[in-house]
Amino acid sequence: MSRNHNKNNSDKRESLGITASKDEEFSEWYTQVIQKAGLADYTPVSGCIVFRPYSYAIWEKIQSFFDNKIKRSGVQNAYFPLLIPESLLNKEKEHVEGFSPEVAWVTHAGNSKLNEKLAIRPTSETIMYDSYRKWIRSYKDLPLRINQWNNVVRWEFKYAMPFMRTREFLWQEGHTAFATKEEADKEVLEILDYYAQIYEELLAIPVIKGRKTEKEKFAGADYTTSIEIFLPVGKGIQGATSHHLGQNFSKAFDISFSDKDCGKGYVWQNSWGITTRSIGILTIMHGDNKGLVLPPKIAPVQVVVVPIIFEKSKDKVIKNAQHIKKLLGKHSVILDDRTDYTSGFKFNEWELKGVPIRIEIGPKDLEKKQVILARRDTGDKKAVKILNLKKVVAETLMDIQESLFDKAKKSLDRSIVDIKDLKDFQRYASQEKMLRMKHCGNIKCEEAIKDNSGLKTLCIPFDQPEKVEGKCPHCGEPARYVVLFARSY
Amino acid sequence: MSRNHNKNNSDKRESLGITASKDEEFSEWYTQVIQKAGLADYTPVSGCIVFRPYSYAIWEKIQSFFDNKIKRSGVQNAYFPLLIPESLLNKEKEHVEGFSPEVAWVTHAGNSKLNEKLAIRPTSETIMYDSYRKWIRSYKDLPLRINQWNNVVRWEFKYAMPFMRTREFLWQEGHTAFATKEEADKEVLEILDYYAQIYEELLAIPVIKGRKTEKEKFAGADYTTSIEIFLPVGKGIQGATSHHLGQNFSKAFDISFSDKDCGKGYVWQNSWGITTRSIGILTIMHGDNKGLVLPPKIAPVQVVVVPIIFEKSKDKVIKNAQHIKKLLGKHSVILDDRTDYTSGFKFNEWELKGVPIRIEIGPKDLEKKQVILARRDTGDKKAVKILNLKKVVAETLMDIQESLFDKAKKSLDRSIVDIKDLKDFQRYASQEKMLRMKHCGNIKCEEAIKDNSGLKTLCIPFDQPEKVEGKCPHCGEPARYVVLFARSY
Repeated sequence: MSRNHNKNNSDKRESLGITASKDEEFSEWYTQVIQKAGLADYTPVSGCIVFRPYSYAIWEKIQSFFDNKIKRSGVQNAYFPLLIPESLLNKEKEHVEGFSPEVAWVTHAGNSKLNEKLAIRPTSETIMYDSYRKWIRSYKDLPLRINQWNNVVRWEFKYAMPFMRTREFLWQEGHTAFATKEEADKEVLEILDYYAQIYEELLAIPVIKGRKTEKEKFAGADYTTSIEIFLPVGKGIQGATSHHLGQNFSKAFDISFSDKDCGKGYVWQNSWGITTRSIGILTIMHGDNKGLVLPPKIAPVQVVVVPIIFEKSKDKVIKNAQHIKKLLGKHSVILDDRTDYTSGFKFNEWELKGVPIRIEIGPKDLEKKQVILARRDTGDKKAVKILNLKKVVAETLMDIQESLFDKAKKSLDRSIVDIKDLKDFQRYASQEKMLRMKHCGNIKCEEAIKDNSGLKTLCIPFDQPEKVEGKCPHCGEPARYVVLFARSY
Repeated sequence: MSRNHNKNNSDKRESLGITASKDEEFSEWYTQVIQKAGLADYTPVSGCIVFRPYSYAIWEKIQSFFDNKIKRSGVQNAYFPLLIPESLLNKEKEHVEGFSPEVAWVTHAGNSKLNEKLAIRPTSETIMYDSYRKWIRSYKDLPLRINQWNNVVRWEFKYAMPFMRTREFLWQEGHTAFATKEEADKEVLEILDYYAQIYEELLAIPVIKGRKTEKEKFAGADYTTSIEIFLPVGKGIQGATSHHLGQNFSKAFDISFSDKDCGKGYVWQNSWGITTRSIGILTIMHGDNKGLVLPPKIAPVQVVVVPIIFEKSKDKVIKNAQHIKKLLGKHSVILDDRTDYTSGFKFNEWELKGVPIRIEIGPKDLEKKQVILARRDTGDKKAVKILNLKKVVAETLMDIQESLFDKAKKSLDRSIVDIKDLKDFQRYASQEKMLRMKHCGNIKCEEAIKDNSGLKTLCIPFDQPEKVEGKCPHCGEPARYVVLFARSY
């Protein structure tokens, strides 16, 4: 990812605040927000970023939330090698075709050339399933449900965008094996639910659950389910995926087991993952022209207390600010008592970083036994009696979380248009909308739509009408299901 | 790491239990324990292992313990790129000389050759400090204290040994920058203390804290402090290191800041790390001929409840076993109610896995309102009234933790011999001991000792006599300090 050397923009970036409008100059806005809010930075490695502490803390919250869910469900964490021998990567045909154009290859160690080149994992199916073959012998070894939190590299040649598309990213990849397809099918949906909860409960982002079309499914899967999100920039994005791999890999890797009656069978497998792209989605979904806006449940800092310092009342104000920090101890609170910065500077900085609540305490407030509470999402400010502060802060945090979700939900609902015929389709295809329409399920029709309009299918939503009748508005063939089309990342 | 194809050994390995003696066939014992206890497995990638769920759970406990400590101290987690451009790696001379023979190089992506080859990080000083240069401008930006949990690759050509020496391993690397040397010096010791606590409190392993000699310090450091451990196989091993880098990197990377009086200065830096080698150390320190022995504080499973099942009393016994699992809810307890395995098989399996306490419940025990409690460390078995079980289990876990530490401490103390003269030295140099002796501090003398006897310095222990007088027993030059020599990993 090369730095943007546009002259006009580089002037703007010298300013501490965000100088680009989210609606009008989205790309510049995004670049400024991720850097100025301290989420990420560019590096000398093209396409790779630093996850700075502020974004990493968000990732840790996502990790902790999801890790608890899967552990309670019986999944265990492990760690498999970063490097995969070429011969192993080539074992499942569709899979290798999907990934090999983007593989980073290790060919040398020190001054020696390696006998066989090694791929940096773009995903770990092949290296993990080679072990699964050894570990799974009998029905007693099933189910095997393993997850790993790690880094992967996919050397994409498309324009990079921090969090959204980087050559190295962080994720978790769960890989499970079952004796029956039924158990596997059930787990696919269980995990998809957890992903939906990450987005809806933590990140305050409404999602659409569904199944990918044959064209868009994972390379090597029987079917792919996904969480789809529609961003306010008018583009869809995949938030996480949960795949059923059927027996494609178990046959290629010979992962078989003897059942109770001594028969032999191949295992049924799933894989599922969520990546640090979620941080980019969070940024774009809620951010505004002042910078980040973080839902309280994912915010590394929920409340910042800023004492308004005058020489005369300094000690008293700081003492009270410390008291308030303690009072709000169950939330994550920062007391910004830096003396080298003005209050105005601090207000802007914490707004840029999207901290949900700011509490200002000055000498005049103290006389009235109150503080000023400012909401990041609405910008509203009000005086609150210190006596009531604990309760008001807890309620306000909850309210911000809900308001952000509601706002995003309304925006999502407004973005969906129902397409009845070709005229409808042509009218909305060029707009920043999600087109909900019947479709023939024909890959050729889907490809034609993509070629003509740039629209791709996001998913076949689980939420389908009872009966799908009539024709595909695009090609006129009988409709099979309702599908969502949109421009997407 | 190629699998051992020795015929005799491969027969033994078919057995479920450990068939090698720790004292007599250590290498075979170790290979069996890490595989049969489910800690690790070999992979098709030479020198790289799978960290299976059981060892990864141990690593997660170490992570959680240390992560809490450093976060409370003000360190923040982040994530920097895996890949480092060759030109950047070459920036600090001593550093690159130390690492370049072991670097794995990425030269291609997809079908394209890269313009500049990329190193897989052997450690992240160079990639991180390139960012630090940009982020640090003023004293207000200091201290900067960042840590990352990640994977690194060092393509060693020596014989690999799971956990102890693998080409890829997991670790944390902390990298901090301060305005003054005093602050940096202080942090070096603070972190070293946390490492000592990991070993002594969690892993029940006594340590020796000290400073590395000039010969053994980190490539690019001003000085290196370390945690040294002496294993019952008669070898020393470095448990973790905390380095003061001085201004070596800040000058090479131009990391400077303006102070309050507008003067300019280079920052003072530290780096510090602990790796998954700790899991190997844990295994070797406490393990016995039945397999792993885990101290309760690090054990993923602290108590296993095994119901002794006869058809007649089955329901009652299982119901009571479930009750006991609940009763012990504050510990991590597994109820092994698998019906496909005999009790004997289960006993062996959990012993192999080193679970500190086993509780057996059979119909006859229930008549007496008791259970049988077996300790993994001593093998002792006793009947305990269910009424007292909660208390007895809590006490026994504490006692096991302490007993393992005490046993290891006694073994450590027995392993140290004080060397008074050359005769002493010659006598003990070939034994499996730690030689505590005065030393001249001369690199040539240290090298000569290594060449002649295979002994290396572990460290210059912090615990020094008030005055060091007399001569180096090896070369006769005036002694500078007391040092520990031993064979080591």
